[in-house]
Amino acid sequence: MNCLRTEEALSPLNLSDRSDKVRSQISKSEAVVVMDPSNVQWMTGFTGSNGTIYIDHERFVLITDQRYQEQGPLQIMQSRSTAELSISKNSIEDLSKLAGRKTIKLDSNQVTWATAVRLGEILAGEIVPSDPLSGLRALKDQCEIDRISLAAKIVDHALKDTIPLFSQKVSEMEVATHLDNKIREYGASESAYKTIVASGVNSSKPHAQPSEKQIEQGDLLIIDVGAVVDGYRSDMTRTFVIGKPTDLQENYLGVVLEAQQEGIRILEPDMPCAEIDRRCRTIIEEAGWGSSFIHGTGHGVGLDIHESPAINSQSKEKLLTGMVVTIEPGIYFTDSCGVRWEDLYEITETGARQLTLSGKSPQA
Amino acid sequence: MNCLRTEEALSPLNLSDRSDKVRSQISKSEAVVVMDPSNVQWMTGFTGSNGTIYIDHERFVLITDQRYQEQGPLQIMQSRSTAELSISKNSIEDLSKLAGRKTIKLDSNQVTWATAVRLGEILAGEIVPSDPLSGLRALKDQCEIDRISLAAKIVDHALKDTIPLFSQKVSEMEVATHLDNKIREYGASESAYKTIVASGVNSSKPHAQPSEKQIEQGDLLIIDVGAVVDGYRSDMTRTFVIGKPTDLQENYLGVVLEAQQEGIRILEPDMPCAEIDRRCRTIIEEAGWGSSFIHGTGHGVGLDIHESPAINSQSKEKLLTGMVVTIEPGIYFTDSCGVRWEDLYEITETGARQLTLSGKSPQA
Repeated sequence: MNCLRTEEALSPLNLSDRSDKVRSQISKSEAVVVMDPSNVQWMTGFTGSNGTIYIDHERFVLITDQRYQEQGPLQIMQSRSTAELSISKNSIEDLSKLAGRKTIKLDSNQVTWATAVRLGEILAGEIVPSDPLSGLRALKDQCEIDRISLAAKIVDHALKDTIPLFSQKVSEMEVATHLDNKIREYGASESAYKTIVASGVNSSKPHAQPSEKQIEQGDLLIIDVGAVVDGYRSDMTRTFVIGKPTDLQENYLGVVLEAQQEGIRILEPDMPCAEIDRRCRTIIEEAGWGSSFIHGTGHGVGLDIHESPAINSQSKEKLLTGMVVTIEPGIYFTDSCGVRWEDLYEITETGARQLTLSGKSPQA
Repeated sequence: MNCLRTEEALSPLNLSDRSDKVRSQISKSEAVVVMDPSNVQWMTGFTGSNGTIYIDHERFVLITDQRYQEQGPLQIMQSRSTAELSISKNSIEDLSKLAGRKTIKLDSNQVTWATAVRLGEILAGEIVPSDPLSGLRALKDQCEIDRISLAAKIVDHALKDTIPLFSQKVSEMEVATHLDNKIREYGASESAYKTIVASGVNSSKPHAQPSEKQIEQGDLLIIDVGAVVDGYRSDMTRTFVIGKPTDLQENYLGVVLEAQQEGIRILEPDMPCAEIDRRCRTIIEEAGWGSSFIHGTGHGVGLDIHESPAINSQSKEKLLTGMVVTIEPGIYFTDSCGVRWEDLYEITETGARQLTLSGKSPQA
């Protein structure tokens, strides 16, 4: 075992400012109710399956059930959250007592229709669809960036250890298992999502699942993999050629890399996300493969693998210092093959810092 | 490698009857819109991250985006689903064209508040909260039970291979990693949830996460683990004692086992789920530990790890032939230890069949 987690001096997470951050988004007559697990973790450190947060300018309460009567207080303390804990059999009733006649902001993209209806019935105040946390979570503090960066480093090491397999007789599934194991050995709690290992014709599916297919000479091989450290995720894609690349394969790889570099070049605060997408897309369109670039250019990464900001043609967001985003153009040819390059960047005051450091030599 | 998946002759899934099953729940003027990924998979075999189903008495359409233009048709064909596929940039607009003035049934526990509001704005008909799929999904066909059963068997084998580790110097995390690897080696696609390995004081938390803590002599050790085969899950918990059990440990283990057996004894069609919970709970209450049994007695298992029916004191459901349920009483003593036994049962016409077959000798 060669655990990177213990070698790195990660300073403990400090969530003591999170309540003030949320309060800065609401008036005295308003409150926020948070039910999404990642939002609950961001505010309190709590990772249980059942957590509801109520916050206004006086109270900041995490409501959970008896199963978490030990874990709840421990995680609040360890993360230096200022939340009070309430162990309850009925969190909705608890909310009605806490809220009084306040207007409740509720993330309409996270809460279910049934919960919204139930809260509407039971609360004296009005519920309004509003999501103050998504914008706050997009701006990472140093402790968060350290964890994402370590998750990226763990994947760099795990991938390096896995590359020698490609030239042996292995299946996509065996490569995925090897990567996932290495990721845990290096100190991540788990992989950040279902690791994609897609070879040959399977690489033409952007979200392929690893299969029993053997990796063969002549294949393009897409590896899309991330790790989790203290809940924070990394995200990276590399494309390899097994054996000597053909001219066409080199052309695919080169054009997508050029598109990615064009996007990376303009990463800086205040840059419109839609402009990054446009720049990457233009390069691929000029090569004649515009209709094969069938997804957005990137997304924010943090406690969720996809979070604010979205980097696509419809995005209204701009980059800000402290955001962590992927840049991942790709092209996919039905029944043939695909290519994708993806890296993770921290937006800094002067530009961007690359967090995923694996090489881009396509030859395994 | 000793893959159980290939040894077993699993007949292919056949989803050709799913549209009729759903249509039996609606009138000619009604339609159902399905967005939950497990429901989408149950109806069409499709496992992509973006799928919306529209079904009425004429049309049955799966709407997804261009990323799935290959995977979508393939999975529909392989599962013998009768769905038409629509590749779309805007599934909500597609829905409005399909639905006309029909009343739309929408699962209010799965769909977000934002989606419900948006559908309410764009659809000519009315949207009503209704979930015809949960009851249908609770009744498994033979192909589904075969997969759950194989997932359970894979975990039986994986656990058997892992027990010899307990007496060595290993951490909870190492045990969890070993189990997860064995589960994949035996042919599951992944573990059914984050495997719980909780030793000593950690066993007092029902949802503990594996830590770096070493497993030590005298510990109680809870292992809660499942596997996934073609999306179908298994669920099992065993409690071990490391070394010679104390009288108190034996007492804990024996009482919870007796409670579990009391619940299992009455598994049969038409049994009220609340009655099963009451029977288990009574045994633990009589031992004086009622307040330490801090969760429900069980739940249905299928494409989701928790699905209908709920087996707890509030449940209004009854068992029916074809349901697959866990029976899992447990007791938890703060800062001390916990014990849980959990098995998976298929409800048959005459009673129940146990799917998890690992032994219950607590001594590792």
